[in-house]
Amino acid sequence: MPSEMSPDEFRAAAHQAVDWIADYLRDIRNLPVLPDVQPGALIDHLPKTGPEQGESMDAIFADFQNLIVPGITHWNHPRFFAYFSISASGPGILGEMLAAALNVNHMLWKTSPAATELEQVTLGWLRQWLGLPDHFFGIIHDTASTGSLHAILAARELAAPEVRRTGEFPPLVMYASEHAHSSIDRGALAAGIGLENIRHVPSDDEFRMRADALRAMIEADLAAGRKPFCVVATVGTTSTTSIDPVAEIGEIARRYNLWFHVDAAYAGSAALLDEHRHILNGAAQADSLVVNPHKWLFTPVDLSILYTRQKDVMRRMLSLEEAPPYLEAADQDRAVNLSEYSLALGRRFRSLKLWFVLRYFGREGITRVLRGHMKMAQDLAQQIAADSRFEIAAPVLFSLVCFRYRGSDQYNRDLLDRINSSGRAFLSGTTLHGKFVLRLTIGNVATTEDDVRQTWEWIRSLVLPGTGSPGGEPLHPL
Amino acid sequence: MPSEMSPDEFRAAAHQAVDWIADYLRDIRNLPVLPDVQPGALIDHLPKTGPEQGESMDAIFADFQNLIVPGITHWNHPRFFAYFSISASGPGILGEMLAAALNVNHMLWKTSPAATELEQVTLGWLRQWLGLPDHFFGIIHDTASTGSLHAILAARELAAPEVRRTGEFPPLVMYASEHAHSSIDRGALAAGIGLENIRHVPSDDEFRMRADALRAMIEADLAAGRKPFCVVATVGTTSTTSIDPVAEIGEIARRYNLWFHVDAAYAGSAALLDEHRHILNGAAQADSLVVNPHKWLFTPVDLSILYTRQKDVMRRMLSLEEAPPYLEAADQDRAVNLSEYSLALGRRFRSLKLWFVLRYFGREGITRVLRGHMKMAQDLAQQIAADSRFEIAAPVLFSLVCFRYRGSDQYNRDLLDRINSSGRAFLSGTTLHGKFVLRLTIGNVATTEDDVRQTWEWIRSLVLPGTGSPGGEPLHPL
Repeated sequence: MPSEMSPDEFRAAAHQAVDWIADYLRDIRNLPVLPDVQPGALIDHLPKTGPEQGESMDAIFADFQNLIVPGITHWNHPRFFAYFSISASGPGILGEMLAAALNVNHMLWKTSPAATELEQVTLGWLRQWLGLPDHFFGIIHDTASTGSLHAILAARELAAPEVRRTGEFPPLVMYASEHAHSSIDRGALAAGIGLENIRHVPSDDEFRMRADALRAMIEADLAAGRKPFCVVATVGTTSTTSIDPVAEIGEIARRYNLWFHVDAAYAGSAALLDEHRHILNGAAQADSLVVNPHKWLFTPVDLSILYTRQKDVMRRMLSLEEAPPYLEAADQDRAVNLSEYSLALGRRFRSLKLWFVLRYFGREGITRVLRGHMKMAQDLAQQIAADSRFEIAAPVLFSLVCFRYRGSDQYNRDLLDRINSSGRAFLSGTTLHGKFVLRLTIGNVATTEDDVRQTWEWIRSLVLPGTGSPGGEPLHPL
Repeated sequence: MPSEMSPDEFRAAAHQAVDWIADYLRDIRNLPVLPDVQPGALIDHLPKTGPEQGESMDAIFADFQNLIVPGITHWNHPRFFAYFSISASGPGILGEMLAAALNVNHMLWKTSPAATELEQVTLGWLRQWLGLPDHFFGIIHDTASTGSLHAILAARELAAPEVRRTGEFPPLVMYASEHAHSSIDRGALAAGIGLENIRHVPSDDEFRMRADALRAMIEADLAAGRKPFCVVATVGTTSTTSIDPVAEIGEIARRYNLWFHVDAAYAGSAALLDEHRHILNGAAQADSLVVNPHKWLFTPVDLSILYTRQKDVMRRMLSLEEAPPYLEAADQDRAVNLSEYSLALGRRFRSLKLWFVLRYFGREGITRVLRGHMKMAQDLAQQIAADSRFEIAAPVLFSLVCFRYRGSDQYNRDLLDRINSSGRAFLSGTTLHGKFVLRLTIGNVATTEDDVRQTWEWIRSLVLPGTGSPGGEPLHPL
């Protein structure tokens, strides 16, 4: 066994892997989306101890195919409709392959100038396409959770700079809609904002934050001597893709001097379309904004973007007394050291795959695919609405359809289990107005109208004929 | 332009990419390690606006080769000796390729059982090889910075659970050596521990934390009414790879009831070797420990492991009042939902590449490569010590050699610049006992004795003949 795999051995094994991947992408509809495995099955099957001697790549690859793939939930499957469905598009996979070989860690400009600058270029392109201001500084994080954590830390730094020096907190209070993502609350917890100081602002009938309720909560906190410091608006909430009133919330943020963070992780991509550009109206006033190309922009996980107009605060919040001697490097005008803006010092070369995706599809190709997803969602919603046994449970704004069988929660939960355990499609669920509903999102680049139509026909075939159990008023008229 | 790259188009492009990668790995010594580019060069060269229409993969790939590669700092180059040198080994790259295509997000067990369980299996193998206790729970983070942040948050949760509820902090104080990594301080800042409450414990002549000084600092803080809550020991500090007295620090942590975190990001891998197993003596008592396979275990960035014996605390510290409805999933006995233990909700399938690496090399192959690196470092140190113009600046414990020309700091800084700007090798620097020294680490799987020998001969040729400027006593006898 040589010390390292030789370039020739790598070449042979990698060509094999590529053929496997191409076959996988071609034949993926033959695989169950959700695997039929029991907890612990793989653990029980694999050795308890690592191998003493090296093994051949053939043996390892055979185990990958026989043991790992059957236990995979296929997020890249065109009938993966759960959570938010995502895509590793061809160009995105190619970008990851090359990035893995280069193995760059561009923590500083000089530790990879091209990786540092390509991140700025690609994020600049996207910033323009989203209609965000030129002075927004962009940086890539792994996930929106991490980006939002950085936003909250920056908000803390701006409102209470003494925390970084002394660790003494004023009574900071944060606001987000009751439909904001759980990562917002968890980021606040990490930053030392207690659960008691995280306000969940009530939403209206269409799951949008109520600006009047936000204002009243802020006033009450001020009257009680607390210190409001941050508000989060969501563009595309997880349960329903509802859109908080961004401009109105931004105005309140300005008035009360709060950091204004916009979580557009999923729906932000839709702002590339002229007819949806308005969803980011008011976002130019945000202090920070998150959007995830690894959600609805065909880019393999992970790649989440944090834009901010408070670049200096984002750096100051993590700055120490002095730079460690092994990292000496001035952040000059044109040579940005990106690690100064993130908790993670190491940075892998994520912008390469984004560059490949943006160029391969172009703005025209991207918008065409997104429009297609939204059209499929609208068509599906029409069909669901036309079947009196079902009801639409939330407005269909983008590519998510929330619906339910007009029956008990238990019936709907069982229905979801039956859909998912078949392996034919994978949907998820949520609770709206106290009722359990099914979520079907369309976001994979390979999903076709047939995938959606067949899934719907098949769901219909699973439920009782007739008009369903009495369900009272529809949860939400289409 | 089709909506998505067809499997056939992907196949053709990916075979091309594989050939490029294999050629790159074969011919990498022909490339300058550090590129000769000016800040902004790539930014100026690329379009200011993203492409309206999609482009061919050929055109994109040509730009990758002509514009990106010349601006890359080649971390995978066998003569990359800066910071800690790392490797994207062949099996590691193959693992990343397949993971990119699967595009799994295993935030919950059911969102990819095999990815969730393979993470536990591979981390279990490594835990055994490192001699850590079976009850340590392991989880993968992107970087050690993130893992250590989670350790500090857990320490805060255990010492001051009221923070999570009320946001009211007792006067918490954290301790780490003056040679601890900057990410420890930054993690503490994020967690709300002010700079004034982060103690940098003095080190001895060999850059190891002084346990007596730690004890005195804790006593002084207790006497002043403050609340010591966490101490970090480093196994393999960044400047010199020095090893803090883990067992002794652990004893102090137990006595004063502090969370005990061990940062073994770089040197932890050396504990796979019987003769180095002792460096983790006492680590079994740690509450948490970080080790980075993406540093010295041939795994492409990013993959850092956080082990903990406080699994419950690690979950509790991020738990909300209630789980969000779209994530409903019980963390059952054998079906662990890994996202409950990390700030990032999304999790890409990182354990696949680690599994490939551990199996391809086996414990025997890994230890052979690591021993080779350490042997090369020892040989180099002997040669440096034999040249009276140079001096060794710190004990050579693993694969890092700190040395300097017996002359001014400015001379050494200039020497480093001359080495690096040549492109033949890339070294970094640090400051020890107030003097600037050069750092040369050997950690790439493809590095040979010739790479090190040629680099040293060439460095010698760059300096003045004779015995160097008068430098007084040697900084450190070999």
